[in-house]
Amino acid sequence: MRSEEVYAKSLDLHRAKKGKVAIESKMPVNSMADLALAYTPGVAEPCREIGRNRDSIFEVTSKANMVAVITDGTAVLGLGDIGPDAALPVMEGKSILFKRFADIDAFPICINSKDTDEIVRTAALILSSFGGVNLEDIAAPRCFEVERKLQEIADIPIFHDDQHGTAVIVLSGLLNALKVVGKDIGNVKIVMTGAGAAGTAICKFLMSAGAKNVILCDRGGAIYKGRTEHMNWAKEELAGTSNPNREKGSVADVMKGADVFLGLSGPGIIDQDMVKTMAPKAIIFAMANPTPEIYPDEALAAGAAVVATGRSDFPNQINNCLGFPGIFRGALDVRASVINEEMKLAAAYALAGLVPEDELRPDRIITEVMDERVVPAIAAAVAEAARKTGVARI
Amino acid sequence: MRSEEVYAKSLDLHRAKKGKVAIESKMPVNSMADLALAYTPGVAEPCREIGRNRDSIFEVTSKANMVAVITDGTAVLGLGDIGPDAALPVMEGKSILFKRFADIDAFPICINSKDTDEIVRTAALILSSFGGVNLEDIAAPRCFEVERKLQEIADIPIFHDDQHGTAVIVLSGLLNALKVVGKDIGNVKIVMTGAGAAGTAICKFLMSAGAKNVILCDRGGAIYKGRTEHMNWAKEELAGTSNPNREKGSVADVMKGADVFLGLSGPGIIDQDMVKTMAPKAIIFAMANPTPEIYPDEALAAGAAVVATGRSDFPNQINNCLGFPGIFRGALDVRASVINEEMKLAAAYALAGLVPEDELRPDRIITEVMDERVVPAIAAAVAEAARKTGVARI
Repeated sequence: MRSEEVYAKSLDLHRAKKGKVAIESKMPVNSMADLALAYTPGVAEPCREIGRNRDSIFEVTSKANMVAVITDGTAVLGLGDIGPDAALPVMEGKSILFKRFADIDAFPICINSKDTDEIVRTAALILSSFGGVNLEDIAAPRCFEVERKLQEIADIPIFHDDQHGTAVIVLSGLLNALKVVGKDIGNVKIVMTGAGAAGTAICKFLMSAGAKNVILCDRGGAIYKGRTEHMNWAKEELAGTSNPNREKGSVADVMKGADVFLGLSGPGIIDQDMVKTMAPKAIIFAMANPTPEIYPDEALAAGAAVVATGRSDFPNQINNCLGFPGIFRGALDVRASVINEEMKLAAAYALAGLVPEDELRPDRIITEVMDERVVPAIAAAVAEAARKTGVARI
Repeated sequence: MRSEEVYAKSLDLHRAKKGKVAIESKMPVNSMADLALAYTPGVAEPCREIGRNRDSIFEVTSKANMVAVITDGTAVLGLGDIGPDAALPVMEGKSILFKRFADIDAFPICINSKDTDEIVRTAALILSSFGGVNLEDIAAPRCFEVERKLQEIADIPIFHDDQHGTAVIVLSGLLNALKVVGKDIGNVKIVMTGAGAAGTAICKFLMSAGAKNVILCDRGGAIYKGRTEHMNWAKEELAGTSNPNREKGSVADVMKGADVFLGLSGPGIIDQDMVKTMAPKAIIFAMANPTPEIYPDEALAAGAAVVATGRSDFPNQINNCLGFPGIFRGALDVRASVINEEMKLAAAYALAGLVPEDELRPDRIITEVMDERVVPAIAAAVAEAARKTGVARI
């Protein structure tokens, strides 16, 4: 289907269904006896039980399986700062993906504020109903602070999917791509474009996984320690930990000799000539949507060995749906208080492991979204990592 | 079932079901094509549509049928100020009652604050997802301010059910009870005990419906203009509009000659001797739960003509489930911006009308919660009143 058709059909479907999220009752109310158990007077007892033992809220309410999908509507898809109302269709969409892929109940909350502390405070005050929070489509660098501050207050996992979900899947794909080309993550030069939520998180996460030489570029070119223009506190932090050789200049400049290019920016950022300057057996993840930084056929023709995109109509789709359902499933299953680095790394390795080494090919470095093994595999790995790191409560 | 059995069975059921609220997806996601419509890239179009026309959020999202059940946990059932966590089972219960009785999707939000302005601000910032707000179990007099201030900000109905839902059903029952005894609401003396959310709202609503002589009593006895002890701003307001003869003294004092007694307080407030001092053909609504102010057999033996309670095991149950489902159904159906006095009066008359005059008896002044006619009858009346008063948007 062409984009225009998808858009028109989606709008029609949204009108026909009147949105995507409904509430389902888990208890029957077909008699006065049912009513006495689900509501007054019986419901007083679960209330008293929570009063006696606060943790029982995970047992007698829907909290343990309920995730809030929270946004401020400032960085929605490719649409940008469209506000909380216009963001609602995306948050409802995310909610039903939680249900579909991981049987997690998720509810959309769009916060009508752009003030970091107000967003944090609002979210913090309504957490009783929720066992976890998926932050979504909040602009950088506000998203980093919202996540950190909310996690400091909350005793349930706060997870910004645009950052960490993406990072998990990119690392997973990259681990397999590196196997295909026979390189080691500790020895490769990785160039990235896009210093928003995803780019920043991926850069940090790759270093967590052992990458030594990652260069993140924004509109001002390579970010390096000592750069003064177009900086903010988040970029300053990265400048201090990435790009160890302090390479400067444009994307084209730093791409020379790179083993890996990760695009989180937009079309036209790189071209075939730049790919040709990369090291042999180059890996390219061109993840801009819907138009990638470079099309797979162009990248391959220019000498790239492995190419991935964000699209389902090319091989090797880097799709967030591969990550967050299993990550949250695992975290909720053990009532984790956070989703820590170890849990995210476990998720990435588990996802990578779903394509066994003998099946790895340049056009098969990651499995498909509809692969039913994904959520159980990631959930089990995440739960185990939570237990090992002492953040599991059951 | 005895109370202890109901409590134990309810707790078991809550554990077995792990709470009462789940999320249901209204769109299938069984293929990449489905995903492209429900989520990216297709979902961008409903987002853009809301950007072009803000009202389309009622058409392309679940907002139009979604109600927030909001509490601060300060006045939960008979349990009092148990906090937002312990209140969650009640809010989940309310949510599934919305679903069961009116096919309204409702989601529980427990706000962890006792500050009026913070509660209002928090609720106001998360309204994108919701077409209406049911305030629940917020202590008086804070509940009055929360409702008023939130309604001033919101363009969707804000409805404190403990106040207005109760008031609608009490008026409905009283209108029929007055027919049974052949009295007119404009000529009767009504004594009420309990000056909390429900008592206050009922007192005002009865006056809206034509009652001239309503005397509200609290622990300090009758509230009258000029009383100085145990007052707050809400009681001051009522003192100025009710009790036109400035009757003073205890409940027993003002009960003398009363035609109607409405109890919203607790057991032991009235006795047979006090009932005997009432006017002939006295009407008694003893609504304290689970133990009424006086039991029906005692009240009838003391000369009362009509008795109602809050319990399902006696005739004439005054049950909130008779009100809010139909009231919200009607308001949401016409996308009302508020639930105004006319809509509430229409609801009360519609509910009363479900027991036709030739079926009215002392033990049948109001229909049952499981009467399937209730919601459609109230909804139609409320929607019509909304249109007539210009607050309907479709």
